[in-house]
Amino acid sequence: MDKIDFSDKYFMQQAYKEAREAFNKDEVPVGALIVSKGQIIARAHNLTETLNDVTAHAEMLAITSAAENLGGKYLPNCTLYVTLEPCTMCAGALNWAQIGRIVIGAPDERRGFTRHQPSPLHPKTEVTTGIMAEECAELVKNFFKNKR
Amino acid sequence: MDKIDFSDKYFMQQAYKEAREAFNKDEVPVGALIVSKGQIIARAHNLTETLNDVTAHAEMLAITSAAENLGGKYLPNCTLYVTLEPCTMCAGALNWAQIGRIVIGAPDERRGFTRHQPSPLHPKTEVTTGIMAEECAELVKNFFKNKR
Repeated sequence: MDKIDFSDKYFMQQAYKEAREAFNKDEVPVGALIVSKGQIIARAHNLTETLNDVTAHAEMLAITSAAENLGGKYLPNCTLYVTLEPCTMCAGALNWAQIGRIVIGAPDERRGFTRHQPSPLHPKTEVTTGIMAEECAELVKNFFKNKR
Repeated sequence: MDKIDFSDKYFMQQAYKEAREAFNKDEVPVGALIVSKGQIIARAHNLTETLNDVTAHAEMLAITSAAENLGGKYLPNCTLYVTLEPCTMCAGALNWAQIGRIVIGAPDERRGFTRHQPSPLHPKTEVTTGIMAEECAELVKNFFKNKR
């Protein structure tokens, strides 16, 4: 069983708010935040269309912002909350950042990092899944339904 | 056998120059460039220390810069030259960019994307390896030797 902090749902709700902001900008609705010592130190949503940049995923922007905030590029005592399972790019970045923990909303069977072996994550990174999974998945589903 | 364009060595020499710039800044010496229709449209070197950002790999900076230059975030008609085998993060980004071709200098047995299955690259991306492999590997080796 995954470990669930009492505050995971609260922080995922905040990440979900970010995902909704992306939705409202016609971006694939994914939101992320990074928490250190119970404080949100970075929040971001997907901006690949707005910035015309495939690397501008919510997780990447959050990692860059958290490192700037902390003044150090490693995040071993931080938790990333993200509404959708990170892709390989983001998992690779989270590995370099040595993030302590990742909390994931909905799984991404097509592009999620868990399809890849060995895991692209750092071996010390803890992973919790399924927090607000339905709401997070529904948002992405609605986004793509509107596109068809 | 890998396909070798007559110009691959020329462009890899340019990527190597970028790697040397990284070396001179005390950054892990990796350089990258992106070529479209025979023209260099982006050049970059690793800046993770300078920018205090684990995502600032040469390839990531080159992808962002090339997309800005072209005004579109997909790079199917472009070739990336990089002195060291990309990591999973960079391979994932190259996948999202749908890059047409990648030319690699030295292999990276520890952190290279080829360790991972299925391949994090886009299925249509062509890969050429081993251009200036010795020089590119030597530069990285010298960098880490100086660190010990």
